[in-house]
Amino acid sequence: MYSYTKLREFAEKVFIKMGCPEKDAQLAAEVLLSADVRGVDSHGVARLSGYVRLWETSRINAMPNVKVVHETPSTAVVDGDAGLGLVVAPQAMKVAIEKAKNVGSGWVAVKNSNHFGIAGYHAMMALEHDMIGISMTNASPLVAPTFSLERLLGTNPIAVAIPANKQPPFVADFATTTAANGKLEILQRKNIEAPSGWVQDKLGNESTNANELKSGGSLLPLGGDRDHGSHKGYCLGAWVDIFSAVLSGANYGPWVPPFVSFLPLPENPVGEGIGHFFGAMRIDGFRPADEFKTHMDNWITTFRNAKAIEGEKVQIPGDYERAESEKRSVEGIYLLPPVEKELKDLAEKMGVAF
Amino acid sequence: MYSYTKLREFAEKVFIKMGCPEKDAQLAAEVLLSADVRGVDSHGVARLSGYVRLWETSRINAMPNVKVVHETPSTAVVDGDAGLGLVVAPQAMKVAIEKAKNVGSGWVAVKNSNHFGIAGYHAMMALEHDMIGISMTNASPLVAPTFSLERLLGTNPIAVAIPANKQPPFVADFATTTAANGKLEILQRKNIEAPSGWVQDKLGNESTNANELKSGGSLLPLGGDRDHGSHKGYCLGAWVDIFSAVLSGANYGPWVPPFVSFLPLPENPVGEGIGHFFGAMRIDGFRPADEFKTHMDNWITTFRNAKAIEGEKVQIPGDYERAESEKRSVEGIYLLPPVEKELKDLAEKMGVAF
Repeated sequence: MYSYTKLREFAEKVFIKMGCPEKDAQLAAEVLLSADVRGVDSHGVARLSGYVRLWETSRINAMPNVKVVHETPSTAVVDGDAGLGLVVAPQAMKVAIEKAKNVGSGWVAVKNSNHFGIAGYHAMMALEHDMIGISMTNASPLVAPTFSLERLLGTNPIAVAIPANKQPPFVADFATTTAANGKLEILQRKNIEAPSGWVQDKLGNESTNANELKSGGSLLPLGGDRDHGSHKGYCLGAWVDIFSAVLSGANYGPWVPPFVSFLPLPENPVGEGIGHFFGAMRIDGFRPADEFKTHMDNWITTFRNAKAIEGEKVQIPGDYERAESEKRSVEGIYLLPPVEKELKDLAEKMGVAF
Repeated sequence: MYSYTKLREFAEKVFIKMGCPEKDAQLAAEVLLSADVRGVDSHGVARLSGYVRLWETSRINAMPNVKVVHETPSTAVVDGDAGLGLVVAPQAMKVAIEKAKNVGSGWVAVKNSNHFGIAGYHAMMALEHDMIGISMTNASPLVAPTFSLERLLGTNPIAVAIPANKQPPFVADFATTTAANGKLEILQRKNIEAPSGWVQDKLGNESTNANELKSGGSLLPLGGDRDHGSHKGYCLGAWVDIFSAVLSGANYGPWVPPFVSFLPLPENPVGEGIGHFFGAMRIDGFRPADEFKTHMDNWITTFRNAKAIEGEKVQIPGDYERAESEKRSVEGIYLLPPVEKELKDLAEKMGVAF
């Protein structure tokens, strides 16, 4: 078990060794570790070596000049200057929040960025301002739209954070596929079959082989197949792709650059880097914030107290992550042996104590 | 077969008999018929008698004073004054579009409204202004969140309309359930079983009985069950409910009034009527519209031309509705015998020629 603080400090030191300014390194480490502490292991320190390898191949700029390149009072495009998404995203979300303070809402599309960690972190930045936060990003293509044999979309997550009063906030944060790639990787490690509707093989047949992506298969949009609404999951993934990248001028669809440095960049890019999209809306742009938050308390308790299937309960989006957060802040964060080894190797390579 | 024009004129006359001002009656008929012509039979003239019955029980106000009751430069709440959603929604969407003209984007939550027809119509209003349009609504509770035995959400659709250049626009319009209630009704009429993941019985067991809702069962969120991502569909439906109703001051969750007039209104309402949420974003609030639309053409043709499963092709959201529209504008609109009979009865009752 590792303490949150120690892992965050380690990540921060690694980012500093990459050449990030101290403030950026702190922020990037905080965003990265927010995944581990919230129980989203696939998006936390397990990815640290991946970011470093992208920096080594010059796909990440440690000293980016992140700036607004186009704007109206409620909208903007931010150029991430190939910086760490972990740093670019919170800066862009801040722009959205500032605009919301001024005119009620702010909407910021980002180009020329990289993987931004967990979507929920950025959306949740809005909460302390009594705003609703929205965050989405495109990602490298692993997903076949309904009836496609080609991978054209990423797992393209959406996060929506909504403040309440006495109740904790509503925080939805999910990939627009039946299951995120991280979930599939867990099955691979455990050598377990995947449920139907998660992946298809390279000919478009249903498959339960958790390793199907290595043989030309694809992840499937939320819904799995046409009968179960996969065209809706495809719409969601497409929406995220277009808002994040076609609006901003980033790469979209099959042109989104891969997270792993050993894969080549797609030829003939249609934009710069990967894209994100952020939104912030002031609650009191609609009704008094106290009134809204009291109704959110009622919404949350109504759903939480609903009669449930034997042995289960109705959860509120964010419940799982909050419970993990409370547990892991005390008990520490468990790292799988291969992740532990990778971080030790990284520590040695970067000359940082682990 | 009935011609689009004749059916629209018929609906318009019925709305006028209800006491709607001529302009409102025209608009309501246009919105209603846009569903029939686009192939969404469940949301068109088949619902006309339902609207009339709601008016008869004084749940619809034919002469509403639709007005903005709270606003910032980019946000507003509109009070629909219990008007036809078919009329309230386009007016609210116009407010969003005006705000987008002024400050880049506009976001309007609506309370005290009724069923607004197809979500896509309202989102598509943004297209001619080179804007992206978004439209969503809550609806009476038929859907059980993951693990719930109680119906707490409506089918809560989302529509997103995005303009292209030479290609037709991208228009996604879908219920946030595995299947919309209209799809289930089709199976009921044909006496066919439902695929897994559409409904559960009153004890929360998987069911393929298309009539399950009549015995206390529920529709299921997109995904169907937890293994197949129903918690994500639940997040989507919840998001729509909160944006449409908690932001605006309408009824949410189990308090949303039913569309059918024979069911009583829920006790102790938490707001007024049902709620909608609309958004409009100026493309050139992000990048030049021509540049964006040319990339949308590329996005669309890339997806459309992807290698597909034998005998199928990759569709662009909106393709089906456009094809139906072209066909039905020429061939006319087919009405099922029970719908035909209901409209004839309605014509007689209202003293309008059918």
